[in-house]
Amino acid sequence: MWLTEYQTPDLRLGLRMKSVLRNLQTPYQHLLVVDTEEYGRTLVLDGAIQLTDKDEFTYHEMMVHVAMCSHPEPAEVLVIGGGDGGSIREILRHDTLRKAVLVDIDEEVIKASRDFFPDVSCGLADPRVDVKSMDALEFIKGCESCFDVIVVDSTDPVDFAEGLFREPFYRDVFEALREDGMMVAQTESPFAEPRLLREAVAEMKKVFPVVKVFWGAMPTYPTGMWTYTIGSKTRDPENVLREEPVGTKYYTAAIHKAAFALPPFVVDLLEREGDSC
Amino acid sequence: MWLTEYQTPDLRLGLRMKSVLRNLQTPYQHLLVVDTEEYGRTLVLDGAIQLTDKDEFTYHEMMVHVAMCSHPEPAEVLVIGGGDGGSIREILRHDTLRKAVLVDIDEEVIKASRDFFPDVSCGLADPRVDVKSMDALEFIKGCESCFDVIVVDSTDPVDFAEGLFREPFYRDVFEALREDGMMVAQTESPFAEPRLLREAVAEMKKVFPVVKVFWGAMPTYPTGMWTYTIGSKTRDPENVLREEPVGTKYYTAAIHKAAFALPPFVVDLLEREGDSC
Repeated sequence: MWLTEYQTPDLRLGLRMKSVLRNLQTPYQHLLVVDTEEYGRTLVLDGAIQLTDKDEFTYHEMMVHVAMCSHPEPAEVLVIGGGDGGSIREILRHDTLRKAVLVDIDEEVIKASRDFFPDVSCGLADPRVDVKSMDALEFIKGCESCFDVIVVDSTDPVDFAEGLFREPFYRDVFEALREDGMMVAQTESPFAEPRLLREAVAEMKKVFPVVKVFWGAMPTYPTGMWTYTIGSKTRDPENVLREEPVGTKYYTAAIHKAAFALPPFVVDLLEREGDSC
Repeated sequence: MWLTEYQTPDLRLGLRMKSVLRNLQTPYQHLLVVDTEEYGRTLVLDGAIQLTDKDEFTYHEMMVHVAMCSHPEPAEVLVIGGGDGGSIREILRHDTLRKAVLVDIDEEVIKASRDFFPDVSCGLADPRVDVKSMDALEFIKGCESCFDVIVVDSTDPVDFAEGLFREPFYRDVFEALREDGMMVAQTESPFAEPRLLREAVAEMKKVFPVVKVFWGAMPTYPTGMWTYTIGSKTRDPENVLREEPVGTKYYTAAIHKAAFALPPFVVDLLEREGDSC
């Protein structure tokens, strides 16, 4: 029994399964939780691996701590998507935090994480955390100067998540941030999806004065090389302003600085014009 | 038609094939060259992907330039394994080079690369390069203070390549290096093969005064996160002493420095005792 993910039509990853723990169609997507030999429990949405027990830490730590540690005092933080709670868990490592809001459109993701990924969802029960099941595109319109950091922990930019990679959404995020705030988004693999990365960065640059790409290892995502992009109102996210959070397995201040060193092939694709990717 | 690589018994990668270009048993291993939709031409030895047109540059550049750029004047360089010629191509970017020797046990690998990977094997015809088909374990015993840099570009440590990850070999490499020389070896994935990484580093530390691990992205190798380890007689390989080579797509001086920033989970596994990986 294998879990087979088609990362592209011509590339697939297979994980040997021990058992299927949940398998259902939500109003928004197909949700599957399986237990695998190599990576432990694995959450799959619409056929794409979202997280595994073994490697989710690299993604969630980089998603959260680079932005949080380049902000002097992140007190109110919004997570868009990320219903599994992994980003919330990392945000809670920062003792400046007063309030975190999680907005995920699909409450079945939140429920599956609470049922099967206790080490990922643990932070969702924290009294500082407010969990909402609704469309983030709607939620964000009601916010003005509410947040210090906004984490866009989305699925791939297809269907309902596509708007999360576009200029109108980034404008709403800009308005929802305080004057020295910043957003961070996952922006796919430069090997597997160079065009998506380039377009997301280009859209963000229409809105934010400071936009920087960084990257990290993420074994179960296509090609294992994953990018994140920060849009910032004033601050340079390469500057580490705060102490390292305690208990991380991937993130350190040195990794923070190192993650902004981009290979020339990534710089080149970001500078390319039009459809040439 | 799919090329399926079992990266572990419980993890497999599939690449859609266009055609099989070569398929034979050499005296040492099974050799397969296929053309794939996602990664172009792909060399597979004993079922393990060795290189693809699309991503070989990340591996060969990191394999070579970190060591070469932390040596003040690398003039004579030995490559052990690496019959495809990718490491030689990168070594030739350094104008200090006077002589490079390639020793690969299997001449069918060299031949396959010349036949199907012209952009990888191109350097093998350079007049500064001496190509030998023989056992590197034998070759190295005849060398004393011959080389400035030795690149161990080996397959995984099984069968005939296993000795390349052991102390006796590292002692011979030490003797074959000049007084300020250094060796670099590929040392597998910290996610997929933590024990191999830890053991290779421990063996190298028995011989070399300075041993440092660095890492880079490598999409078609298991987990996409690949480590390399330098054993150095005197110099700290984190110090970049030479200008960036021209024409790289992954390596820069900033990437060189960044690559030594290790995630805590890697530091932890290197410090672990005995069989606890």
